[in-house]
Amino acid sequence: HILFCGSRGRMRICGNKKCDTPSSISPTCKLSRKKNSNQSELCTVGTGWVRSVRAQKANVFLHVNDGSSLQSLQVVASSELSDPLLTFGSAVEVTGILKKSPHTKQPVELDAKQINVVGECNPVDFPFKIKERHGLEYIRQFPHLRCRTNAFSSLLRLRSEATAAIHSYFKDNGFVEINTPIITSNDCEGAGELFQVEPSGPDYAEGENFFSVPAYLTVSGQLHLEVMSGAFSKVYTFGPTFRAENSQSRRHLAEFYMVEAEISFTQSLEDLTKVMEDMFRFATEHVLAHCVEDVDLFHKHVTPGHRWGCDLKTEHEKYLVKHCGNIPVFVTDYPYDLKPFYARDNQNHPERTAAAVDLLVPGVGELCGGSLREERLNLLSARAGLNDVYSWYLDLRRFGSVPHGGFGLGFERYLQCILGVDNIKDVVPFPRFSHSCLL
Amino acid sequence: HILFCGSRGRMRICGNKKCDTPSSISPTCKLSRKKNSNQSELCTVGTGWVRSVRAQKANVFLHVNDGSSLQSLQVVASSELSDPLLTFGSAVEVTGILKKSPHTKQPVELDAKQINVVGECNPVDFPFKIKERHGLEYIRQFPHLRCRTNAFSSLLRLRSEATAAIHSYFKDNGFVEINTPIITSNDCEGAGELFQVEPSGPDYAEGENFFSVPAYLTVSGQLHLEVMSGAFSKVYTFGPTFRAENSQSRRHLAEFYMVEAEISFTQSLEDLTKVMEDMFRFATEHVLAHCVEDVDLFHKHVTPGHRWGCDLKTEHEKYLVKHCGNIPVFVTDYPYDLKPFYARDNQNHPERTAAAVDLLVPGVGELCGGSLREERLNLLSARAGLNDVYSWYLDLRRFGSVPHGGFGLGFERYLQCILGVDNIKDVVPFPRFSHSCLL
Repeated sequence: HILFCGSRGRMRICGNKKCDTPSSISPTCKLSRKKNSNQSELCTVGTGWVRSVRAQKANVFLHVNDGSSLQSLQVVASSELSDPLLTFGSAVEVTGILKKSPHTKQPVELDAKQINVVGECNPVDFPFKIKERHGLEYIRQFPHLRCRTNAFSSLLRLRSEATAAIHSYFKDNGFVEINTPIITSNDCEGAGELFQVEPSGPDYAEGENFFSVPAYLTVSGQLHLEVMSGAFSKVYTFGPTFRAENSQSRRHLAEFYMVEAEISFTQSLEDLTKVMEDMFRFATEHVLAHCVEDVDLFHKHVTPGHRWGCDLKTEHEKYLVKHCGNIPVFVTDYPYDLKPFYARDNQNHPERTAAAVDLLVPGVGELCGGSLREERLNLLSARAGLNDVYSWYLDLRRFGSVPHGGFGLGFERYLQCILGVDNIKDVVPFPRFSHSCLL
Repeated sequence: HILFCGSRGRMRICGNKKCDTPSSISPTCKLSRKKNSNQSELCTVGTGWVRSVRAQKANVFLHVNDGSSLQSLQVVASSELSDPLLTFGSAVEVTGILKKSPHTKQPVELDAKQINVVGECNPVDFPFKIKERHGLEYIRQFPHLRCRTNAFSSLLRLRSEATAAIHSYFKDNGFVEINTPIITSNDCEGAGELFQVEPSGPDYAEGENFFSVPAYLTVSGQLHLEVMSGAFSKVYTFGPTFRAENSQSRRHLAEFYMVEAEISFTQSLEDLTKVMEDMFRFATEHVLAHCVEDVDLFHKHVTPGHRWGCDLKTEHEKYLVKHCGNIPVFVTDYPYDLKPFYARDNQNHPERTAAAVDLLVPGVGELCGGSLREERLNLLSARAGLNDVYSWYLDLRRFGSVPHGGFGLGFERYLQCILGVDNIKDVVPFPRFSHSCLL
């Protein structure tokens, strides 16, 4: 008669009278094991951090959370088990009997026989206070502790789930994941704002490069994915990228995650926009379906003022509002001269556009950028400077070149978009930006 | 009557008489679509790179590979469709009828009606030659082209599959994935060999730090995972880590991938070794089951001389051979003074050991290292120097501290171990090491 769906707190069933050999199991595993045992005598150990303490006449009620979901395990203990160390934020290990809860708020509760405070938490020193709803800006000051708030632990679960959904999408659609390098000797777009990498410490002589050449943190894995596009039809990468941008704006980080994909044997830009749209839909539907409570927390409490489409600032976003009615919009075929060397020439004189596409979304602006890549050796080599530094890139067109294209999606901006989070620093575990590299 | 299992080459079914609107579909999707159509008239487009060309009296046979598996699609064309540009490495688009093959080697073959060479490949200039089996050392010289060899495309599929398996293991077992930062202001173990990060270019004054403090590339995400261990019972990270090690050995890279996990409310080292062993088993069984052909290629052709347990060099590996009979071995409870500050004191005077564990495997040596972490504030703060730089780390023990522990696994070494690859540079897409940062 015990329902386990929605029961929370990481628990170990130690089994009746065999408390010395507990084993860690998930709620679902536990369900199947309980069927074979005498439920009325079953002894359960619940562990986690105290989120609330409520004393009544004969009983003390605790909410214990282990980070597996927003919902906490309700613990009911007689007043004798009460302990002044049972404070908000303290870590506890509760042994007791798991029972169907008389309340509708939770399916089960733990009837405590013993409570062990394994880690104290002084409420005066602890920067988060019981029953207070701290703003994102406040909790951001405590990068080592903010995961202990409801808002940020929800965010981290959402981020983990969105990451898994994106990997699933690509895997289910036959893409091979490539770990494009973090350290690289070329910069993708000739853009400035690179971080350079050299060993620290006295073992290395000034002016001597560890890699023999100057080496930088990657700004994009695109060119490396294009290498792979000469042997695989579909590849992608999902990892950190870097910009040494001297900005503390709510839209920029020095270290952020990008999803990048590259597809060979493309026919047109629609081969790309289809993947961009499918991926966006799949990931968003997955997150909305699997993280109902966490998404609700954001939409209802953390960012309640957010409405899709508010706070538009750039030219493109204004265009969105004016012409398209606050929905995601693909903008295609940009002027050729505005695009980097690898963008494919549409050869449509006199306009001369490149087969490039951006996905603009309400509230965030540019979420994805992509293009067909110039696969024709003669057109590519006509561009200045490529023959020296990028001779390897021209080689890709020399040997078995194929029409191909790809795109990149800013993962943090994606999270901002679906959750309505205003500041990008609030969707990344440890934000890095100019003048800030805490921890 | 057409079997699609094992059919290769990325294909687009354009549908009978509707060749102008082809759609990309995977072999499995195709199977279901074909059932509803007139198979004898179905027109299929296969794309990929030519792996072999064989001319007979009336026919030309091509093998076309699209990177989705080791197996190529056999194309049969009448001699009139032959073209001198149909060379090893060229990219082709073949339109024809997919038929059951009369040969047992492949279930289907494509009866070509039209062959279009979309990307030429001059066999004189192309560094890889038809029918030649190039060694790993040779192909390593061409980082932008080596994915076009059977050996390295197999490796990249295996790497992608092993990555997915590791993520699955953690996800299925309730771990939350945390993107620990690449750029960090602290070094995990006080070890030297750090890369420092600063913007390049003239915009930044000498001596001024972009992040206001010196910033380095991470050597481990452990301390950041420990932050999360104060709110989640199980967390992991899987990403690049860095060492500025001046080594060109077959065992070291400047940039490599680590899987790191951290578990709260641990009882003993066995909570860790269980996860290490389960993860290793799960990932390896998954790879062996899902990549049969690719693994076979390595065991039979690429590294045929490899035997598990050969080439042992370090003290520990010798111990393995001598005492344990060439199986993976956990070594636990190291002398306290040899271990970093965070390792948990076993308090077993006079030996004084730390609750640390290494997993040693034949042929590779240390694959994983882990420990319980010192969760007791008084023992941790007694260690010198921690109060200044790591006051945030002590905070984690001050507020709701829990017994916890974790481990890291070197992903490249794992791949070396299961595939028998001698040189670590051959299991990573773009290897970085001292004096080498190609592309």
